[in-house]
Amino acid sequence: MDDTRPIVTILTDFGTQDSYVAEMKGVLLSARRDVTLVDITHAVPPQDVEHGAYVLGTTYACYPSDTVHLGVVDPGVGTDRRAIVVDHDGGRFVGPDNGLFSAVLTDKGLRSVHEIQVTEVVSRTFHGRDVFAPSVARLVLGETPSELGPEISDAVTIDRWQPDIGDREAVGRIVHIDRFGNAITNLQETDFGGRRSVRQLRVRDVRVDAISETYGDVEAGEVVALIGSQGTLEVSVNGGDAARTLGLARGTTVTVSLEDARS
Amino acid sequence: MDDTRPIVTILTDFGTQDSYVAEMKGVLLSARRDVTLVDITHAVPPQDVEHGAYVLGTTYACYPSDTVHLGVVDPGVGTDRRAIVVDHDGGRFVGPDNGLFSAVLTDKGLRSVHEIQVTEVVSRTFHGRDVFAPSVARLVLGETPSELGPEISDAVTIDRWQPDIGDREAVGRIVHIDRFGNAITNLQETDFGGRRSVRQLRVRDVRVDAISETYGDVEAGEVVALIGSQGTLEVSVNGGDAARTLGLARGTTVTVSLEDARS
Amino acid sequence: MDDTRPIVTILTDFGTQDSYVAEMKGVLLSARRDVTLVDITHAVPPQDVEHGAYVLGTTYACYPSDTVHLGVVDPGVGTDRRAIVVDHDGGRFVGPDNGLFSAVLTDKGLRSVHEIQVTEVVSRTFHGRDVFAPSVARLVLGETPSELGPEISDAVTIDRWQPDIGDREAVGRIVHIDRFGNAITNLQETDFGGRRSVRQLRVRDVRVDAISETYGDVEAGEVVALIGSQGTLEVSVNGGDAARTLGLARGTTVTVSLEDARS
Repeated sequence: MDDTRPIVTILTDFGTQDSYVAEMKGVLLSARRDVTLVDITHAVPPQDVEHGAYVLGTTYACYPSDTVHLGVVDPGVGTDRRAIVVDHDGGRFVGPDNGLFSAVLTDKGLRSVHEIQVTEVVSRTFHGRDVFAPSVARLVLGETPSELGPEISDAVTIDRWQPDIGDREAVGRIVHIDRFGNAITNLQETDFGGRRSVRQLRVRDVRVDAISETYGDVEAGEVVALIGSQGTLEVSVNGGDAARTLGLARGTTVTVSLEDARS
Repeated sequence: MDDTRPIVTILTDFGTQDSYVAEMKGVLLSARRDVTLVDITHAVPPQDVEHGAYVLGTTYACYPSDTVHLGVVDPGVGTDRRAIVVDHDGGRFVGPDNGLFSAVLTDKGLRSVHEIQVTEVVSRTFHGRDVFAPSVARLVLGETPSELGPEISDAVTIDRWQPDIGDREAVGRIVHIDRFGNAITNLQETDFGGRRSVRQLRVRDVRVDAISETYGDVEAGEVVALIGSQGTLEVSVNGGDAARTLGLARGTTVTVSLEDARS
Repeated sequence: MDDTRPIVTILTDFGTQDSYVAEMKGVLLSARRDVTLVDITHAVPPQDVEHGAYVLGTTYACYPSDTVHLGVVDPGVGTDRRAIVVDHDGGRFVGPDNGLFSAVLTDKGLRSVHEIQVTEVVSRTFHGRDVFAPSVARLVLGETPSELGPEISDAVTIDRWQPDIGDREAVGRIVHIDRFGNAITNLQETDFGGRRSVRQLRVRDVRVDAISETYGDVEAGEVVALIGSQGTLEVSVNGGDAARTLGLARGTTVTVSLEDARS
């Protein structure tokens, strides 16, 4: 077993019908042939930084802590937005400074953020290939984040992910709709004291009176609320598509009334 | 050449826009960094076990026999459906006991089936990451199927794939529509004595009087029946989409009249 | 670092919902387990050789020159179209002789083209698995292109990519629409003396009076022309989808008037 081979994950909004992802992989394999490349996703909706930030935030912790995560959702490519490398206890992250790495930037495991110095003349439309992938290559070849550029303390984060936690209720939002139409909220189980503390969940005109343990706890076609695989509250339809059926979208408010508030 | 590195294929209905597949890969790479991961597909229609079973059944034989195939199409996640590992001459298979591994469970190369003992408290919504991937990890680290749990003899299989073979005709069904709209049946060439034994093929209101050798044997836009790459009868439109043009779907009956029955 | 492991890229129109790509990968991994497999794309529109040729042509140069590129967009499978291996300074290419490798066949780095001798009886519908992947396997196991078959000098190329360059204007065409709706032309920067030489760009009823440096040089929603990441002229909408907004498609004429022609 060869424990020295580096792992690089890639997340983009490039889709897979063009050559963009493969060009980046070529740059990485040209630098170091024994790198293990893993696609997180390339189906982030075009320029949807928040979607990318959510998916990256739910993935990195499954990887060894020496993994480098290359993230490119970059509507500001070619402008003066900065290129950064984020060093975190759970991995290193390379990409644009636009909030894509919010999950680790706002986490206690954050070590440092460095602005990548772009010295060579590069294309102004494809920094994934010309700035970010070469920076990842430098890291997997042994350079440190500080060799890539000076430390900064004002990296951009997306703030809207914080739920509003009160004594009587917790108000969160849907932060992601997954492939199955499950609507995932930003309410952590700890925000409301576990599923048994919940009296009622309200989202749009739907009321759910208990938090279940799994999809199969309700009949097929019925709405179910449960703690999903990320430890957050999730609204689903057993065997169906909750987002489509209930008209849910990212940003939709979800309110949880707590048992303690029962009068 | 390093012949010890393990190969793991992955087939799911998770799509590629979420983090689910990447989370499973992280678990596997965290266990053993030199594993070669291959995506079979993640585009199985949500919860369509039969589609997944078909694709897995047509793929595994191309892989070395020490490959581990991780399959997760799992509408019953969190219920009492079992988790299994199937040991077959052509590979080992890990996933839910719901018929996904029918192709090898009903094959003469079957060695044994073991029920995976789930001892730790795990999420009840994402066994791909929390049960199946860790079980695959144990196999590629050297454990045997019997170390994962007790042998069982009643694993679930999908039965509807058997065609009805008579002296005068063979009646099969379409078991898969591929990307090109080719309609693939469950009629093996041996079921009807080879393509020259066929007098006529009937599917819906279409009649085809000969089995061709390749798509180009008919004009562009015309219906063609041939023996496809899996050795099964297939209905296509040269340069077109047979399923859409002819209204074919999985389950559509296909009847083949045999020359021997000519009177 | 193990510099001997071979890299094989794969480009097809097979999509990812069927087993076809995974079957080819199984053939390759069965031949040599330490091969690094990279998907360029499998989302080439069915049988669209020109799309595949474009994407392959913009990708290969990012890879080490000993990479083998397996390309299968093959409407003529099973007919008498030839199977070829192209040896080029930038890599080797294996697939059907139908123009898919035009980018390297018309390039000065071309070394030779060999017709693959197909001796065994193989399926007539899936040469990707039964002819091309085994040929790639032979190359990564150390055989030379000439061992695969005799040299030929009349490989098929797609000719329509040449722009019409005059003193006063350069007339090109859109050769690719990417995921973001960017319309990429076949006009190289050298064809018109660099972006500062351009007086006006015309495409359908749109006129653009300057070539910008990046998307952000214009307001959101506005049309921008720039030199894209391949060094070719590209028509985009900042933050939008130029192809959809402006009704652009592959083949649409793009005319550039040059400053030198100003009278």
